[in-house]
Amino acid sequence: MEQMGQMKQKEQPEQIRGKQSIVFADPPYIISAASVAGSKEAVGPLGKFFDMTSQDDQFGEKTWEEAESTMQKEACVLALGKARIKAEEVRYLFGGDLLRQGVATSMGVEALQIPMFGLFGACSTSGEALALCAMSAAAGYGKYMLGVTSSHFGSAEKEFRFPLGYANQRPLSAQWTVTGSGAFVVGMRRSRVKIRGITVGKIVDYGLKDSQNMGACMAPAATDTIVRNFEDMGVGPEDYDRIVTGDLGYIGQSILFDLVKGKGYDIRKKHMDCGMTIFDQETQDTHSGGSGCGCAATTLASFILPKIESGEWKRVLFVPTGALMSTVSYNEGASVPGIAHGIVLEHSAPDPGEADEIC
Amino acid sequence: MEQMGQMKQKEQPEQIRGKQSIVFADPPYIISAASVAGSKEAVGPLGKFFDMTSQDDQFGEKTWEEAESTMQKEACVLALGKARIKAEEVRYLFGGDLLRQGVATSMGVEALQIPMFGLFGACSTSGEALALCAMSAAAGYGKYMLGVTSSHFGSAEKEFRFPLGYANQRPLSAQWTVTGSGAFVVGMRRSRVKIRGITVGKIVDYGLKDSQNMGACMAPAATDTIVRNFEDMGVGPEDYDRIVTGDLGYIGQSILFDLVKGKGYDIRKKHMDCGMTIFDQETQDTHSGGSGCGCAATTLASFILPKIESGEWKRVLFVPTGALMSTVSYNEGASVPGIAHGIVLEHSAPDPGEADEIC
Repeated sequence: MEQMGQMKQKEQPEQIRGKQSIVFADPPYIISAASVAGSKEAVGPLGKFFDMTSQDDQFGEKTWEEAESTMQKEACVLALGKARIKAEEVRYLFGGDLLRQGVATSMGVEALQIPMFGLFGACSTSGEALALCAMSAAAGYGKYMLGVTSSHFGSAEKEFRFPLGYANQRPLSAQWTVTGSGAFVVGMRRSRVKIRGITVGKIVDYGLKDSQNMGACMAPAATDTIVRNFEDMGVGPEDYDRIVTGDLGYIGQSILFDLVKGKGYDIRKKHMDCGMTIFDQETQDTHSGGSGCGCAATTLASFILPKIESGEWKRVLFVPTGALMSTVSYNEGASVPGIAHGIVLEHSAPDPGEADEIC
Repeated sequence: MEQMGQMKQKEQPEQIRGKQSIVFADPPYIISAASVAGSKEAVGPLGKFFDMTSQDDQFGEKTWEEAESTMQKEACVLALGKARIKAEEVRYLFGGDLLRQGVATSMGVEALQIPMFGLFGACSTSGEALALCAMSAAAGYGKYMLGVTSSHFGSAEKEFRFPLGYANQRPLSAQWTVTGSGAFVVGMRRSRVKIRGITVGKIVDYGLKDSQNMGACMAPAATDTIVRNFEDMGVGPEDYDRIVTGDLGYIGQSILFDLVKGKGYDIRKKHMDCGMTIFDQETQDTHSGGSGCGCAATTLASFILPKIESGEWKRVLFVPTGALMSTVSYNEGASVPGIAHGIVLEHSAPDPGEADEIC
């Protein structure tokens, strides 16, 4: 990221950029990543890329919540194994999920006994966790940080919608919560993917109240963070190989394109949405696409990071998006604001002759 | 904190200490703090110390959730005013609450339009927020950080227990959720309270399942963090003027004393619990004491920080405690693990002739 590097040297001595962003002077790396997913995800377009999938969506547990916790624990253990480190070498864990009081995370990571910060950012949590992992690693607060997040179709339907047995009809704007978990080890140890910078999102509320059209609720927040990233870092769509949103889905994407165009940028050729990537629209019928914390996290771990590692994509803006709501706020007539966090990921070429890490 | 300072110079060049702690080489300050509380808190022992109380526990809003959001917003605005800064000068906000999907925070801080990290740490959230504010400020990620948290008796009873109109009987081990919010501006600008270090907590689960006895569920986590703080930083009870837990209450306190004694330390003469301080046990009948994110946050802002500012207390270990559970995890028979984060607060004397900040 030469442009950002030059900006740092010439214009701003600090790492902080513009209103909401950080460009790390000495960037941390994603040392390893792991993805665990369910049976529907296993037969989707990314099925062969996940590290682990289960035909049993309960993952051997008695409840959906325990299943989600088990996915998180498995994703963490896999990521630790790939980084060849033990849980006790991780300084701090940053994790969260969609469930009330974040129980999937509390129960999931408990066995690892890593000092932890619990997060809630709805489906933007993978970005929030990566931002805090990167900030902590770059500041020297520990050698390794672990970020993890998850969602589960069964636990999410129970949390936000109707019992599965009720077999409710879903509107065409609805999205399908991904059953999956992604975990990421971040640190200063060199790998082929560096976290060059972050753009922390604000809450953006256009007043929409339809929780069955979350793409529309989140598109304004995605727009705000993407445009803020461009302006804070002095870059544009041309500087990225991909601009990846979390789970706007088909409806959210079309709104995103319009809103970003209104700000003077055209990202259509660079855009990819994890919710539109993880399921096959022709054969899997998820209506507007996939969603959930696990959607962006597993797509990043399984599909996006390998492309950055290989150098096929040199620089990616990863922008998971969250809809901030609960059944209580919805039933009380509150709107559904959105939030999105931007993570600038860059391919890092190995030094000649130097052994490098593969995520 | 000479002892910690010397350790840093001689033994460990890094800020990281032991297994879970950071001692800041250049410590950030709590520049300002503000507390907003409800009608029951207003007539309690700390009533006269709160910045704002309301006789109307709905704070002019239609729902308990909106009331809680309004408290958060007011607390933030008051803290910003005391620090004489505008919301747009705050780089990042770290906030959370007890409600499902953190809606009190999402709806509360939205108007401030500060880039935000949503947190969930149950009643330990004030410690989690202060830790992340301090880490971010000390790392130079922005001039000012804002930490905020809240709880509300009405919204918490609805979230976790029964409708208020049901007038359910509470067991003697139960605690009373504090209606209140505390906000803190953290930065490198000098004040009379510095955040000398932090000890990030782990999830500790002794297998207790009684959500109506949260003091017992959280005492093991408080023990773990306090003892870890002693060991990581090479200090003991004698190095603190007070060791303040968040909301263990009367039952939790007695368990804490026993557990800490089992680890070889006696903290009885130094201990204070916010849940035992905020309500009067004789006249206010809250059974085991106060609880909720707002309990530790408002007690810190209104009562503890002024004593550190004045120099009456030179060094305090502030350890808010959280019980990690939801109605779903409880109904499914899961245990209630705890987590606690430790914040080392120190009196900072003004330089001779230098104007200093008063929180």
